[in-house]
Amino acid sequence: MIKMVGFDGDDTLWHSEGYYQAAHAAFSEILGHYVDLGDRGLHDDMLLTERRNLALFGYGAKGMTLSMVETAIALTDARISAKDIHRLVEIGKGVLQHPVELLPGIREAVEAVADEHALVLITKGDLFHQEKKVARSGLADLFRRIEIVSEKNADTYRRLFEEFAVTPAQFAMVGNSLRSDIEPVVRLGGWGVHVPYHVTWSHELDHGLGDSHERMLTVESPAGIPAAVRALGELAGG
Amino acid sequence: MIKMVGFDGDDTLWHSEGYYQAAHAAFSEILGHYVDLGDRGLHDDMLLTERRNLALFGYGAKGMTLSMVETAIALTDARISAKDIHRLVEIGKGVLQHPVELLPGIREAVEAVADEHALVLITKGDLFHQEKKVARSGLADLFRRIEIVSEKNADTYRRLFEEFAVTPAQFAMVGNSLRSDIEPVVRLGGWGVHVPYHVTWSHELDHGLGDSHERMLTVESPAGIPAAVRALGELAGG
Repeated sequence: MIKMVGFDGDDTLWHSEGYYQAAHAAFSEILGHYVDLGDRGLHDDMLLTERRNLALFGYGAKGMTLSMVETAIALTDARISAKDIHRLVEIGKGVLQHPVELLPGIREAVEAVADEHALVLITKGDLFHQEKKVARSGLADLFRRIEIVSEKNADTYRRLFEEFAVTPAQFAMVGNSLRSDIEPVVRLGGWGVHVPYHVTWSHELDHGLGDSHERMLTVESPAGIPAAVRALGELAGG
Repeated sequence: MIKMVGFDGDDTLWHSEGYYQAAHAAFSEILGHYVDLGDRGLHDDMLLTERRNLALFGYGAKGMTLSMVETAIALTDARISAKDIHRLVEIGKGVLQHPVELLPGIREAVEAVADEHALVLITKGDLFHQEKKVARSGLADLFRRIEIVSEKNADTYRRLFEEFAVTPAQFAMVGNSLRSDIEPVVRLGGWGVHVPYHVTWSHELDHGLGDSHERMLTVESPAGIPAAVRALGELAGG
């Protein structure tokens, strides 16, 4: 029996990755004044710097901004002007200030699941930024607990299951990332509802799960979430 | 009766502010090559930028680094070189990587209090950086819960008391900051043990508490903490 349902935040409840991708595009445009990026664009250089810095910065827009500044200085052999570096900082600030826009149909979906289950919100990233997004989403009251974590791996979910006093088999996670929301939960013996988002940060594509798994259902849009949770509940034994 | 004791992290369990102040000194030195800072130094400009950015960045070394970059560009009228901006980013990374050095006597003090009370660690700042410091401190096992929060105000403590299932009168907080550790707790009806640190970030000097309060004791060093907690326990009624 499923007792508790967890929801991811970014790109599950509200739009997020699009703002990061727009920031990367603006970054490429500025760098294009200094170096010929050719066809490859900035993508690989930036991803490399970001991944190296993840161990020091963790996730979030502040770390991304510092990585943009580093990448820009390296790729231009320090020719980039302070004015343009300031533009990079402003791009990062823009990401931190973006409006919180809920995905279409998500409020109704969360409310429907909340009628039958205790809900928790489990979101990854910068504490301060995530708290603001949760507050602005207007959904906070639907969740019993709001957990902002630095990484979503098996250890994190194990600790949360203990704090929530549920077994993995009593828990289903709803999210857009196979890597962060679904794989660790189903491998621990929980359940997953995958709601793919139209864009995914390359880093999140790195997972060991195929397109299907016996403890996971994929839905096309938030409207499909309540039925998927019910169906997993049937599999879990009523 | 005091049931639970909270400990602050930075400058209570381990050294922190010194690393930030060293970063500011290195920052001043770099800026000194561009502008005559005179007697006033960089202090006021940097504090102004940091405070303005707190609402967007929250606390921590990544926000400080971005504020250094902004302040440097503004004060040099964008004359600062990309090389020197890269040095600022490296200074910020240095703060994120500093070793975790416990204050002398703190391990023994925490262990002594742990013999008689349930302990929680309540620390403010960047989630990722604080988690690393907690892990490196070697003290994590002494605490029942570790709470990393974005701000330590009355609302935060109220929420934590509810989660911990204690009343304010059953809770004592140990920390170096009157603003963040002591004032909100004693105003809610809890107890405070103030352990002043030899340097304090200017931002933390902004509080409405005098040097003494009937629900607070001040101790000179960690060695005094266990006796102070016991004395407050007597005041609290056994």
